[in-house]
Amino acid sequence: MLKLYWAPGTVASATGIVLNEGNVHWEGLRVDFANGAQMQPEYHAVNPKGRVPALATPGGVLTETGAILEYLAATAVPGLVPADPLQAARMREVMYYLASTMHVNHAHKGRGSRWADDERSWADMKAKVPETMTTSCAYIEGLIVGPFLFGDDVTLADVWLFTISCWLEGDGVDVSCFPKLAAFREAMNARPSVRAAREKGLMG
Amino acid sequence: MLKLYWAPGTVASATGIVLNEGNVHWEGLRVDFANGAQMQPEYHAVNPKGRVPALATPGGVLTETGAILEYLAATAVPGLVPADPLQAARMREVMYYLASTMHVNHAHKGRGSRWADDERSWADMKAKVPETMTTSCAYIEGLIVGPFLFGDDVTLADVWLFTISCWLEGDGVDVSCFPKLAAFREAMNARPSVRAAREKGLMG
Repeated sequence: MLKLYWAPGTVASATGIVLNEGNVHWEGLRVDFANGAQMQPEYHAVNPKGRVPALATPGGVLTETGAILEYLAATAVPGLVPADPLQAARMREVMYYLASTMHVNHAHKGRGSRWADDERSWADMKAKVPETMTTSCAYIEGLIVGPFLFGDDVTLADVWLFTISCWLEGDGVDVSCFPKLAAFREAMNARPSVRAAREKGLMG
Repeated sequence: MLKLYWAPGTVASATGIVLNEGNVHWEGLRVDFANGAQMQPEYHAVNPKGRVPALATPGGVLTETGAILEYLAATAVPGLVPADPLQAARMREVMYYLASTMHVNHAHKGRGSRWADDERSWADMKAKVPETMTTSCAYIEGLIVGPFLFGDDVTLADVWLFTISCWLEGDGVDVSCFPKLAAFREAMNARPSVRAAREKGLMG
């Protein structure tokens, strides 16, 4: 059985939602971030990067949301990657933007110590998060066809975007400025896969 | 014909090398970063994110290295993505790590203004780059089978990693501490695809 290492309110929820989309039977193993369990040798033996998600598969542990979601789409949850290469590229264009830009913008709120040592720098980074996340939302708003990113069909990128979109109020973004993104979030919230993830505590 | 928007010494070289691996006939359009061309309306009409690479395809412009490389592997340059889903996931695990962590670590050297407004914060970020990039190299060193990441076959992840590995001396990393990574870089440097990219000026 697939086992997902997760913590509430993190990007690990995207993996949980994709597993739910495929009605996959999976076990959740909660990593206690509040007590720093992600920094302990026991969890580093699972994922030396000390992050979630990590997915234990019959072939070993996989990390990185984008790699995990593609693996699930290829093995257990069909229908979430467009068959056409250009459309698949459009999906991955969003996925890599989320990974390399939007999630990174968010991370500067509470994880400044990854990139600087002075507490004043961390405060400076944190103060800029509403601006950078609003810029990211404006870019995403321009992509959304509706109700989902590319129209009626949910893809891996929708699930990942949904997870990040749940952080926006906490990041100081005025979501009412982005009506397509707000409607997208409602459409995702109505899915049984998301409701099940929320009931399990994944959304935080 | 595919057109690649690029600037020397940037991650755009990964796309150029993959195009060369497939002997694809492509046109390069150099974006003049020194004069800020990436911030001008003309280039924003190509890529509103103001970054390279951007690849003009018959179906429109694609951005984000990971999405572009996957598109090329699916349409024009076969053999760079493992057929087995787990092996493909291992490749993508590296690709997403490069996109979301290692390239981001590097970017804090010269792009601090993306995430903070105070020049002291930028200097603080810059000072930490040798440490964060060395940590990234240690993680990658542990993955390399040799001569390439996963053995004898080059994948998309190898090309991307090679591009980033060309920045290490400039980022203050002592590459001699990472013999597998150093040997990997030599093996990649010997490939005709890399030599052609260097001759074209892509490596900076």
